[in-house]
Amino acid sequence: MTVHLPAFTDIEAAAARIAPYAVKTPLIENAALNDKLGARVFLKLETLQRTGSFKFRGALNKISQITPGDRAKGVVAFSSGNHAQGVAAAAALFSIPALIVMPKDVPVAKLEGTRSYGAEVVFYDRLRDDREAIARALCEERGATLVRPFDDPDIVAGQGTIGREIAHEAAVHGVTLDAVLAPCSGGGLIGGIALALSATSPSTRVASVEPENYDGMRRSIAAGKRLAAPGGTPSIADALMAPTPGEIPFALAQRHLSDTLAIADDDLALAVAYAALTLKLIVEPSGTAGLAALMCDRFSAVGKAVAVVLTGANCDFSAVAQACAQNR
Amino acid sequence: MTVHLPAFTDIEAAAARIAPYAVKTPLIENAALNDKLGARVFLKLETLQRTGSFKFRGALNKISQITPGDRAKGVVAFSSGNHAQGVAAAAALFSIPALIVMPKDVPVAKLEGTRSYGAEVVFYDRLRDDREAIARALCEERGATLVRPFDDPDIVAGQGTIGREIAHEAAVHGVTLDAVLAPCSGGGLIGGIALALSATSPSTRVASVEPENYDGMRRSIAAGKRLAAPGGTPSIADALMAPTPGEIPFALAQRHLSDTLAIADDDLALAVAYAALTLKLIVEPSGTAGLAALMCDRFSAVGKAVAVVLTGANCDFSAVAQACAQNR
Repeated sequence: MTVHLPAFTDIEAAAARIAPYAVKTPLIENAALNDKLGARVFLKLETLQRTGSFKFRGALNKISQITPGDRAKGVVAFSSGNHAQGVAAAAALFSIPALIVMPKDVPVAKLEGTRSYGAEVVFYDRLRDDREAIARALCEERGATLVRPFDDPDIVAGQGTIGREIAHEAAVHGVTLDAVLAPCSGGGLIGGIALALSATSPSTRVASVEPENYDGMRRSIAAGKRLAAPGGTPSIADALMAPTPGEIPFALAQRHLSDTLAIADDDLALAVAYAALTLKLIVEPSGTAGLAALMCDRFSAVGKAVAVVLTGANCDFSAVAQACAQNR
Repeated sequence: MTVHLPAFTDIEAAAARIAPYAVKTPLIENAALNDKLGARVFLKLETLQRTGSFKFRGALNKISQITPGDRAKGVVAFSSGNHAQGVAAAAALFSIPALIVMPKDVPVAKLEGTRSYGAEVVFYDRLRDDREAIARALCEERGATLVRPFDDPDIVAGQGTIGREIAHEAAVHGVTLDAVLAPCSGGGLIGGIALALSATSPSTRVASVEPENYDGMRRSIAAGKRLAAPGGTPSIADALMAPTPGEIPFALAQRHLSDTLAIADDDLALAVAYAALTLKLIVEPSGTAGLAALMCDRFSAVGKAVAVVLTGANCDFSAVAQACAQNR
C-alpha cells in the first residue's frame, strides 16, 4: 500500500484554513541562551498556541474540512493529552461533538483542559488496552470522524504550518537557519516541519528529538523501515511515548529529515527548569526536547543559527516546580 | 523649576538606539482570556525582554549616550531589582562598570540576576536609609553617571518605546486599541507609554495601575500635584512601591493619562496564577497589575480591544508556585 503524502501546497492550504483561529506564535531570541550556547537560537513558542500546544493546528486543519452533513456525528480521537485538547477546542469552534480516548495516567492539566472545551472523555489503560481499537469502535458506533494524532495528511500539513512560519520569520530577520529541532513522537510535527523547510529553506537541516527508549523514529530511519522503540519505564515526556512513527511521518522523514536524536529524561528536566527560571516560559517536559538537545550538546549549535520548537505547556504546574527545585 | 519633558521624537530616537540590543517583544492574544473577559486583550510580553523586564529599554537608552570619556567612571543606580538588572546588563554591553544600590529584602532572583551581569551591589534598608542619597554620594565619589529609575527624560523615552511598538503592532492587526493598561511605580513606564500613544493612537485611553496604599500616581493626579501614597504593609508587588511619582512622569501623566487605578494584592496573586496556569507565562506580581485590573473588573474591557503590558518576570519561582497553589 502506498500512503498519500501531503505536499507543500497542502501546508499552504492549511495555513489559510487555520489563520482565523490559530495564534501565529512568536519566534524569539533570548540573550542569555544565545550567550550560553554561542549561537543564535530562535524559540518558536507553541506554548502560547491556542490550547497550549501546537496540536491545535493539525486538529483544526482536519476538523474544518468535515462536511456540514457529517459534523453532527462528531469526532473521536485518542491522545495522551495535547492532541485531545487540540481536537476538543477545534471541534467546539465548529459546534462538533468530540469524544476523546485518554490514558488513565494523563496529567490533570491535560484532562481538565480537554473537558474544559466540552469534550467527553473515555479512559484506557496504557499498558493493557489498544486505544486505537477503542477509538475505531466508537467511530463505527456513531458514524463519527476519527481524528488521528499524526498518521493523517491533514494533520501533518497542519503541524507543518509551524515550519512555514519559522522559515518566513527567519527570512524577515535576514537569517538563513542552519537547523530546526523539534520533538518527535509519532512524527506528525517533525514530518510536517521537514516538508515545509524542504520547500522554503532547503539548506536548513531538520532534526527530530525523542526520549531515550522511545526513539522509534531514530531506529526506523537507521533501519530504513518502521520499527518500534523498546519503551519501558515511562518518560517524563508523556507526550512523546508513541513507540513507532506513523507511515506518513516516516515516509516524509526518510525524504527530508537530516538528523534523529535521542535524549535522557534528566536533560528534559534540566531544560524545563532553564525555561522557567531563565527564559520565563512554562514548557512541559515533552515540549523542551529540542532545547534540551542543544543544552546537553546532542546537537552542536556553536556559531550557527538554529530554531527550536517549544511545542507545549500543558503539564501540571507541580512538574515544573519540581524540575526547578532539582535543577537550580 | 520647569522639568524637561521628553517628546515623541525622543521615543523614536530611543527606539533606534535600542533596536540592536532589545527584544521587540511579542504582542499576543489568548483565546481563553479573550473569552473570559469578552474582549480582545493584547498582551505585551516584556517578561521576554532582555534581563526579564522592560527596564532594559530605558537603561540602554540612557547608558548608550554616555560619552566615551565618561564610560570608565561607571554608572550608579538604586533599584528594587528590575532597573538594577536593566542597568547592569546595558552597562555590560558598553563595558561600563555598574554599581547598584539595592534594598536588603530584594528577591533572590533579582539580586542574582544583577550580579550575573557583573554589577557590584551595595545594600540599603528600605525603612531606614535614603537610597537616593547613598547613590548620589557614590556618584560624587567616583564621578559616575547616576541612572535614575524613572525621573529622567532618557529613561522615560526608552520605556515609551513599548507604547510605540504596541501602537504599530495593533495597526498591523488592523485594530485601534480602546485602551492600554500598565503598572505604575515612579511612572517612567506609564509616562512614556502615554506620551507614545498620544502621538501614535490619540483615541486610545492609557491607564496606570498601582497597588493599594502605593497609589501615588492616582492620588497625585486627583490632587493636581505630586503626593506620596501612605505605604505601610509591603505589597507583593515589590517593584511598585515608589511612594511618589517622578516629576517628569507626573507632568506627562497630567497631559496624557486617562485613568488611574489601584488594586489589591490578592488580585495580583490571582493574576500571577492565571498567567502561569492558563497563559503559560511566568509574570512577577508587579508585572501583572494591568492584567489584574482587567480580571478584577477595575477596568471593564467588555467588547473592547485593550493592550496590557506584562512588565517583568524576575520574581523567585517559589512566589509563582505559591500564588498558583492558592489560586487554582
